Amino acid sequence: MSHIRGRFGKGADEAASRYTASIPVDWRLYPYDIAGSIAHARMLARQGIIPSGEADTIVAGLTSVREEIEQGRFDFKAEMEDIHMAIESRLIEKVGEVGGKLHTARSRNDQVALDTRLFLKETIRDTLGRVRELQQAVVGLAERNIDVVVPGYTHLQAGQPVLLAHHLLAYFEMLKRDSDRFGDCFRRTDVMPLGSGAVAGVPYKIDRDFVAGELGFSEVSDNSADAVSDRDFVIEYQAAASLCMMHLSRLAEEVVIWSSSEFGFIEVDDAYATGSSIMPQKKNPDVAELARGRTGRVYGRLLAMLTTMKGLPLAYNRDMQEDKEGLFDVVDTLLATLEVFAGMVSTLKVNPAATRKAAERGYILATDLADYLVRKGVAFRTAHDIVARLVSRAAQAGKSLSELTLAEYKGFAPEFDEDILAISVESSIAARDVPGGTAPGRVKQAIAEARKVLDG
Amino acid sequence: MSHIRGRFGKGADEAASRYTASIPVDWRLYPYDIAGSIAHARMLARQGIIPSGEADTIVAGLTSVREEIEQGRFDFKAEMEDIHMAIESRLIEKVGEVGGKLHTARSRNDQVALDTRLFLKETIRDTLGRVRELQQAVVGLAERNIDVVVPGYTHLQAGQPVLLAHHLLAYFEMLKRDSDRFGDCFRRTDVMPLGSGAVAGVPYKIDRDFVAGELGFSEVSDNSADAVSDRDFVIEYQAAASLCMMHLSRLAEEVVIWSSSEFGFIEVDDAYATGSSIMPQKKNPDVAELARGRTGRVYGRLLAMLTTMKGLPLAYNRDMQEDKEGLFDVVDTLLATLEVFAGMVSTLKVNPAATRKAAERGYILATDLADYLVRKGVAFRTAHDIVARLVSRAAQAGKSLSELTLAEYKGFAPEFDEDILAISVESSIAARDVPGGTAPGRVKQAIAEARKVLDG
Amino acid sequence: MSHIRGRFGKGADEAASRYTASIPVDWRLYPYDIAGSIAHARMLARQGIIPSGEADTIVAGLTSVREEIEQGRFDFKAEMEDIHMAIESRLIEKVGEVGGKLHTARSRNDQVALDTRLFLKETIRDTLGRVRELQQAVVGLAERNIDVVVPGYTHLQAGQPVLLAHHLLAYFEMLKRDSDRFGDCFRRTDVMPLGSGAVAGVPYKIDRDFVAGELGFSEVSDNSADAVSDRDFVIEYQAAASLCMMHLSRLAEEVVIWSSSEFGFIEVDDAYATGSSIMPQKKNPDVAELARGRTGRVYGRLLAMLTTMKGLPLAYNRDMQEDKEGLFDVVDTLLATLEVFAGMVSTLKVNPAATRKAAERGYILATDLADYLVRKGVAFRTAHDIVARLVSRAAQAGKSLSELTLAEYKGFAPEFDEDILAISVESSIAARDVPGGTAPGRVKQAIAEARKVLDG
Amino acid sequence: MSHIRGRFGKGADEAASRYTASIPVDWRLYPYDIAGSIAHARMLARQGIIPSGEADTIVAGLTSVREEIEQGRFDFKAEMEDIHMAIESRLIEKVGEVGGKLHTARSRNDQVALDTRLFLKETIRDTLGRVRELQQAVVGLAERNIDVVVPGYTHLQAGQPVLLAHHLLAYFEMLKRDSDRFGDCFRRTDVMPLGSGAVAGVPYKIDRDFVAGELGFSEVSDNSADAVSDRDFVIEYQAAASLCMMHLSRLAEEVVIWSSSEFGFIEVDDAYATGSSIMPQKKNPDVAELARGRTGRVYGRLLAMLTTMKGLPLAYNRDMQEDKEGLFDVVDTLLATLEVFAGMVSTLKVNPAATRKAAERGYILATDLADYLVRKGVAFRTAHDIVARLVSRAAQAGKSLSELTLAEYKGFAPEFDEDILAISVESSIAARDVPGGTAPGRVKQAIAEARKVLDG
Repeated sequence: MSHIRGRFGKGADEAASRYTASIPVDWRLYPYDIAGSIAHARMLARQGIIPSGEADTIVAGLTSVREEIEQGRFDFKAEMEDIHMAIESRLIEKVGEVGGKLHTARSRNDQVALDTRLFLKETIRDTLGRVRELQQAVVGLAERNIDVVVPGYTHLQAGQPVLLAHHLLAYFEMLKRDSDRFGDCFRRTDVMPLGSGAVAGVPYKIDRDFVAGELGFSEVSDNSADAVSDRDFVIEYQAAASLCMMHLSRLAEEVVIWSSSEFGFIEVDDAYATGSSIMPQKKNPDVAELARGRTGRVYGRLLAMLTTMKGLPLAYNRDMQEDKEGLFDVVDTLLATLEVFAGMVSTLKVNPAATRKAAERGYILATDLADYLVRKGVAFRTAHDIVARLVSRAAQAGKSLSELTLAEYKGFAPEFDEDILAISVESSIAARDVPGGTAPGRVKQAIAEARKVLDG
Repeated sequence: MSHIRGRFGKGADEAASRYTASIPVDWRLYPYDIAGSIAHARMLARQGIIPSGEADTIVAGLTSVREEIEQGRFDFKAEMEDIHMAIESRLIEKVGEVGGKLHTARSRNDQVALDTRLFLKETIRDTLGRVRELQQAVVGLAERNIDVVVPGYTHLQAGQPVLLAHHLLAYFEMLKRDSDRFGDCFRRTDVMPLGSGAVAGVPYKIDRDFVAGELGFSEVSDNSADAVSDRDFVIEYQAAASLCMMHLSRLAEEVVIWSSSEFGFIEVDDAYATGSSIMPQKKNPDVAELARGRTGRVYGRLLAMLTTMKGLPLAYNRDMQEDKEGLFDVVDTLLATLEVFAGMVSTLKVNPAATRKAAERGYILATDLADYLVRKGVAFRTAHDIVARLVSRAAQAGKSLSELTLAEYKGFAPEFDEDILAISVESSIAARDVPGGTAPGRVKQAIAEARKVLDG
Repeated sequence: MSHIRGRFGKGADEAASRYTASIPVDWRLYPYDIAGSIAHARMLARQGIIPSGEADTIVAGLTSVREEIEQGRFDFKAEMEDIHMAIESRLIEKVGEVGGKLHTARSRNDQVALDTRLFLKETIRDTLGRVRELQQAVVGLAERNIDVVVPGYTHLQAGQPVLLAHHLLAYFEMLKRDSDRFGDCFRRTDVMPLGSGAVAGVPYKIDRDFVAGELGFSEVSDNSADAVSDRDFVIEYQAAASLCMMHLSRLAEEVVIWSSSEFGFIEVDDAYATGSSIMPQKKNPDVAELARGRTGRVYGRLLAMLTTMKGLPLAYNRDMQEDKEGLFDVVDTLLATLEVFAGMVSTLKVNPAATRKAAERGYILATDLADYLVRKGVAFRTAHDIVARLVSRAAQAGKSLSELTLAEYKGFAPEFDEDILAISVESSIAARDVPGGTAPGRVKQAIAEARKVLDG
Repeated sequence: MSHIRGRFGKGADEAASRYTASIPVDWRLYPYDIAGSIAHARMLARQGIIPSGEADTIVAGLTSVREEIEQGRFDFKAEMEDIHMAIESRLIEKVGEVGGKLHTARSRNDQVALDTRLFLKETIRDTLGRVRELQQAVVGLAERNIDVVVPGYTHLQAGQPVLLAHHLLAYFEMLKRDSDRFGDCFRRTDVMPLGSGAVAGVPYKIDRDFVAGELGFSEVSDNSADAVSDRDFVIEYQAAASLCMMHLSRLAEEVVIWSSSEFGFIEVDDAYATGSSIMPQKKNPDVAELARGRTGRVYGRLLAMLTTMKGLPLAYNRDMQEDKEGLFDVVDTLLATLEVFAGMVSTLKVNPAATRKAAERGYILATDLADYLVRKGVAFRTAHDIVARLVSRAAQAGKSLSELTLAEYKGFAPEFDEDILAISVESSIAARDVPGGTAPGRVKQAIAEARKVLDG
């Protein structure tokens, strides 16, 4: 029977014990729990709340518990309830009753908030690194294929030709926003909750700023009841991760569609593809598919935590224990997806002949015809109507735009002149020479700026 | 390099391998996978597709693989990809190339659909059993407290007095609908997909009905492309589980509120409560809180799978591998919650003095006054207005209804007579003598009918 | 100030009034509310609770209110709170105080449950009709294209050739399960709650079975507290609708991908496509895209209602008012999507040359080679490996399977014989002659059975 | 037949037309659409793309269209498709073909992105204002009740006494984080997308910075394909709103529980409560309940949009049209909830006698006993165990802590001395004198700082 059941006449029901134990999940917090306890013990001694020598004993004991865990010699058992009690119990086994002084001026409520914030701060740093690696892969692929032309799609219908590099840089932008969001989340996570006690603060002359300094926090929390019942930072990370996975799912969809035989734009490297148990010819873009599928999982975890927190009265409620499993799963899924995407993107093989053929197909230059007429003074809406009729007639006649004669053009609008025949995929791309446009100079400049961001 | 990568020039990237491996999750399907393979092998022999002797060898090999797993002697490794390849590889190690005949007329696509359906059928049977146990606990608690009166709440404001047993039986009804839904889901899960191959069916004279019979299925699937890409049964179970958890979360909320000091209606048994690491007096209803919190998790999993399946073209896509982890988690969460709730409810201690006091507080009998006037010929809406005024005036005077004199009553409506003074919590309850109402006779009958359902 | 605020010293705050009013949403329930009230009034008279003549007056008044609404002469105002009070108030305006007797033995809590169930029963009937219409469109398209061959995809990679009709019938199956689920939901919706009062039942000798009979219900609810706080039927419809939208989103995705220039398998009829404001050549499959997008909306509504109900103590809580807007939105979205899909599918134009070309591309018959070897006695796994090597070598040499000579075949396995050269898309399809397989005879039989279901 | 259907042989199917029209939803964007068009027209003239006089005509026409709409003289019809075409068509009706020049160098894809960003920027400003008003109400309530003591709850069990003001300020903190998040979202919304065209940029010498300046944007978008397919800002607002609603749902839950008769801590003002149609005595906290319920709705909308965007290939897809209805609903729900909560909180009546009685009940000072022993040198864990035993024994004897004699105390630990009898709710609160703690001085300082933030 654990220490904290002191008041009860009997032990927990075995199923209830299994149901409430968090140690199978929260053991991962041990480095943060121990780091937090060490800082706390030092502060207690510094403030004269416990003798210095006892603090040293506690710190030494905690250090040795950490070693046991790191070396796989620590046996996590369900009856330990959670990582905090597991470590405290082991500490007391090792150093005796003095270990029982560690929990002075502290509650599990502020302790677990501290641990989770420490974990998340480190995680966000990792996330930012992984996002950057994928950005590098994206920019690298863009650079290596700087001359490749693809159809720019809307509604999965070819709209206007663009540079593949331009298309790829859209993902760079998405990832840049993701980084921004993770950075904002970091700022709100970087708040030290210890000293809030169970709900009301603690009746000791503690030094919260010292603890914050020891652990690298920028500020301390302002309200104890809020500090122990706040899980915004968990949800905010999950929301930022959901947006990031959404972006990756879009890239994944394009990898899947573009590597179909019918598109044939790209080939996923063998190292990122899998085969079939029955169809020997298959090469499947499984990594992309799984990432797309796991987007649902990450959304589900976000939603789960929002739902769990809904309608909880202040302050801590046990429902909140659910925060960790969902957070860990989101972190693991996102980091793994970013890692494997960096590899997949870096090794993608582009088929420029196929993309170019697609970019020339159909009436993809129709907008350019309309813009041509506008430059000759026709109102855009009128020009649009003229070209729509022209395209419709050409399609009925089975002719591409390049097969039309000047006379045929003139039949639709007298403003058409010799130079209409010079319109091409290249001229179309070059003409989009505005900030953010697909003209080669603009794209090269965008790559240069991306490189600056990545190297900065 | 696994068999199914035969076409590729190189092995999978290590991170990609980890990313795509499902064995850390799907190993749980082994008994179903092996049962399915045994039935398949027997069918192949029966139809002359493989020699009988070879089928015997395969069956013996599979049986021995199963033993290895059950005895913990099987080492699941990530490079095995999934449980199907893990078992097939081990089989081939054991019985040689003949093991390679097992996958004749089969694909992993129909195989995993089979395994998951077998798992789910067994799971639904377990679920129905657990629901019934909780229903029994609820009915038992109702029986043991058959005379206890509680306020019937709307908006968490006391509305009209009811029997606690009546209140509890509402949960019996919810669980009855849950059972119904799980039963419907069973019917749609009970369809045998093997023989669908990868997508198109298989080019062998197989006997699908024989396999269905061996494995206890009621029917075989009607379209191969649908059979390998259908995960409706997974989602339907998750939706039914979400509704069931929603019901349990409502019960949980009542356990939490009713065991607050302010309500003091019930006491959770020590075996289902936990203490505080810092506040020695605390006795927390953690089991109820965790169940309430885990409702979010189950919703999230439902949502995740719906999202994962959205917009997938036919037929199998790797995204669908995500189905199992979410399903297992929902199953584990729901079964554990039902189990621990049965225990918690069975051991709940009710405080009839507190519930009675609450049921007598305030103006809870106001509706009865209005109904009294109606029986004297006043239109209900008019009666409601009269009583509202009466209550308002009494409240201002600080008087309860039982402190009003007949003269005071008559001041509001001449229809009030001597017998108005006899209105009581008991008479109010007894008056609700309609099917589904809280009158003692009706409640006892409802308990008897519940017992019939449970024993049936 | 409304009748039900009788006890209060002042009116509602104006913002609060707007915040709580449900009439902008629930006015749609008026036909059900009035039908329910008429049945209730008749029952009250039949049981002698109100005089027959007064019931007649009430029924006549309600009938005339219904006419006012149907003719657009009824002015719904926010201060009416909800449709129930709006109709009752108007009734009292019309027939005087006797109208105030209608609410005898009734509460808004059981009344709104009744209205919503009546609405949903009618809605489910409509839904079943719409599902059937789409099934008819799907089967019609299959019949009209009975000879068309398409690649059967897994992972959006061509796997094995199948008949387009076979592919389409997968959607028939999905919709069949949807119908089943809506039917199950109907059964659980078909329960009459009136007589449950606010929470405890009512103190009158009412005849609940009579009311159920009048309104076409199969049974009456068994527990009053459950009956007023149960919204399972709303959520169950939303869950079934989510699954159905998921199916439609898969069809939508295929319409989008298949109508890209790169696939070119189908053409959406002009009546179901839209153009671009700027690119004159564009023809976009907007209906399919919107349906795919609105799948998210339906999921969101399901999730919203599950979340809203989570952790609500018994019985009615005002949170539950949120049920209607979400339900109406799901109903409207699903019915409109089914309708417009029936039209879109009926008018789809298939390009058999393009689908055939895709079905012949690459090494789509590789599985057939492996199965060929199996029939010659090679173990499947070995055969799979041989063919994987063969495909890999052929690909390097830039040769299709049909360009390989018998000698080349024999170089991979001596079991290859003359007849290997006869393997074709047709032979591959014909060979999948198993229940649920794509062989032409099986598909025709499946169509015939589908017709039977639709005509049944 | 609309202009943009120029290429098609026939009009849209009527059901398809209804299905695709967004005007019933997006008409709300008209002020932003017109403002954007005016800035665009001015820029076109400034750059010499259209003559100045024509730009003036267009601007005058747009201004007059805006007046028509504001005065309710504009008839929005479904066949107008969307607000952009509705305004352009009306403009052309008014000013003739020259109106057709407005769409030069623009697409609906960048136009709708612009409109939505303009709408959201204004909305975020409104949101920040509403959050601040609620914060003011919270701080005001705290100030007016500065001496009120309540139990600090964990697990809805009284843990330690706190000041009500301290409890309330936890909500101030939550709302402060909400403001921060909305501010971050503003920054990422404040990016001008016009000039991105359909996907590739536009072939005109436009001045994007001029347009940004006219419309008050801080920067222009960096990639045209990203700019037209980015809806991060919509989702980010919805995520921030979900967190904010979660906070409000917690406050709502407390209002509901605390205004139950059993708690009796607070009374909601009549202006924010509603009555019952049947129970004349009821006063229900409907505003709080509805806010709690609508939290589900906001979550559902977030989830819907995330799901809608999942797996969409670049760039614009029609699915994205779904963004607006969900965004508008979230905005309307959140703003209305914040408004009505400010009113409800401002008018809450606190019952200090009831909260004090609850704060003195039971063994709420047990932690203080343990901390007392710690100060006498006992290890915290040992002290916790001693007090747990003491509480358990006192409970069995039916004695409160204040009824124990010094001798009885000493029986549990010799360290107990005379001064233990002086421990009280006041001393307990005063002792939590740490940053973020509930000691009166700390709370007053926190209020002062909150005032500074609000006035700043």
